[in-house]
Amino acid sequence: MSDAQQIAEEIASRCAEFMWADDAASQALGMDLIDIGPGRATIAMTVRDDMVNGHAIGHGGFTFTLADSAFAFACNSYNRRTVAQSCSISYLAPTRLGQVLIAEATERLRTGRSGIYDITVRAGEQVVAEFRGHSREIGGTFFEEGP
Amino acid sequence: MSDAQQIAEEIASRCAEFMWADDAASQALGMDLIDIGPGRATIAMTVRDDMVNGHAIGHGGFTFTLADSAFAFACNSYNRRTVAQSCSISYLAPTRLGQVLIAEATERLRTGRSGIYDITVRAGEQVVAEFRGHSREIGGTFFEEGP
Amino acid sequence: MSDAQQIAEEIASRCAEFMWADDAASQALGMDLIDIGPGRATIAMTVRDDMVNGHAIGHGGFTFTLADSAFAFACNSYNRRTVAQSCSISYLAPTRLGQVLIAEATERLRTGRSGIYDITVRAGEQVVAEFRGHSREIGGTFFEEGP
Amino acid sequence: MSDAQQIAEEIASRCAEFMWADDAASQALGMDLIDIGPGRATIAMTVRDDMVNGHAIGHGGFTFTLADSAFAFACNSYNRRTVAQSCSISYLAPTRLGQVLIAEATERLRTGRSGIYDITVRAGEQVVAEFRGHSREIGGTFFEEGP
Repeated sequence: MSDAQQIAEEIASRCAEFMWADDAASQALGMDLIDIGPGRATIAMTVRDDMVNGHAIGHGGFTFTLADSAFAFACNSYNRRTVAQSCSISYLAPTRLGQVLIAEATERLRTGRSGIYDITVRAGEQVVAEFRGHSREIGGTFFEEGP
Repeated sequence: MSDAQQIAEEIASRCAEFMWADDAASQALGMDLIDIGPGRATIAMTVRDDMVNGHAIGHGGFTFTLADSAFAFACNSYNRRTVAQSCSISYLAPTRLGQVLIAEATERLRTGRSGIYDITVRAGEQVVAEFRGHSREIGGTFFEEGP
Repeated sequence: MSDAQQIAEEIASRCAEFMWADDAASQALGMDLIDIGPGRATIAMTVRDDMVNGHAIGHGGFTFTLADSAFAFACNSYNRRTVAQSCSISYLAPTRLGQVLIAEATERLRTGRSGIYDITVRAGEQVVAEFRGHSREIGGTFFEEGP
Repeated sequence: MSDAQQIAEEIASRCAEFMWADDAASQALGMDLIDIGPGRATIAMTVRDDMVNGHAIGHGGFTFTLADSAFAFACNSYNRRTVAQSCSISYLAPTRLGQVLIAEATERLRTGRSGIYDITVRAGEQVVAEFRGHSREIGGTFFEEGP
């Protein structure tokens, strides 16, 4: 890994620390950040009792929320505050009580202040949802980058 | 209101009772179903401590989840079991701790087994998100319709 | 109609004249602007030989292009230059050689520099596509609004 | 390349021949199929006089139509007739008269009868649009696969 890549990885990690400390919602849902880097993030979450219906099938909103969190960490990994503008999700399989869902966010494109991120949510090998998010930088940073 | 309309309203109410009884997730988020009818549903939810970040700004995932629930009640109002296929959301304004969000779902189109629903989420007068959902009937009913 | 409404209708008509004069592409496809007003536009187009396959079924790209033109006229009806940011389309029925398609654009929301427009494309009574467009004002006008 | 891969490539090429022979619309727009394989397709198109406005800026509908054609060839590369259900496009840069646009379609996922394809449209090095398409198999083949 080059020095520039190394620095980019460190910046991404530090952004994630700031975001995570501030993200009571993702914490309350039991999310676990398992990878972070420039333009990428992977988050895990277990489908809990309070996320399912009487047949133990997960509410799609929580699948979306997991993907949305991975999207947020990925698009905020450059130390430039960035928000979601719009997102779309396709549901490909139901989720079930007790499953560990893994959302993996990758960057498709970043141009000017805009970005497009693709997030795949899996339960084991099975893809349960595909999510695409559009981001926009709003100005501001998480921390000062020093010399 | 014609007899046919009256019956359609009653069927929608009964579907909602079945769905609500089964929807621990929407209940756990403090949602309140305030209107239901054929192809439409309105649900309220207050932005709680566990839905916001350290600046008291709501996580977009909960706004989505509220809209998604309104979508589910609206597209399941004909006593035909129906699931979400894909959804998209545009965020138009941040949500804040303590706000009461109202999601209003209306039916844009229903053809064959497919449907398109538009859900507007407001905080007071302000639109905070626009959501569009695509649904698909999967077979099965909530209850037997009588003689 | 109030004076303010009357003025808004006239501004929309004038914007449409400027756009139309400049829009060789929509003209080349045989489009016909049949209604224009603040936040709305309706355009007709006949499905031609060069828009279909060997089974006389229309290429979805032309249905999209018709809807996109209606979207452009609707979101540019306030004398503020506005562009499409992103669009989505759902195909609900095939189109066929010789059909007259009508795309009707309505404004769902306009806030700050952003707008959301819904466009329904019909062939006779049948909805063939639903389109949603997101617009953004980029600065500039079509003409000077005088005293 | 394994025998199975070789066969898949040949099937994709044969599907493309059948589709191309039947696709007067893509031909009339001057499209050129430059790569085809299982789940992928790349198509080029030059922005012509009849695709631009008076300022030589391309109508977004043609960018969409190019991406939509690449999508169609990619999702029909398995000798199973497949149609577009819904598509979304984000415009990232304007297109201009005389530019050669290249649309590259890749398969994100294929499960059951459904598929998701990502299409990037470039002018030279610059990405001008990102497109995502959802497909559905409708039954039927282009040709009989023999022993």
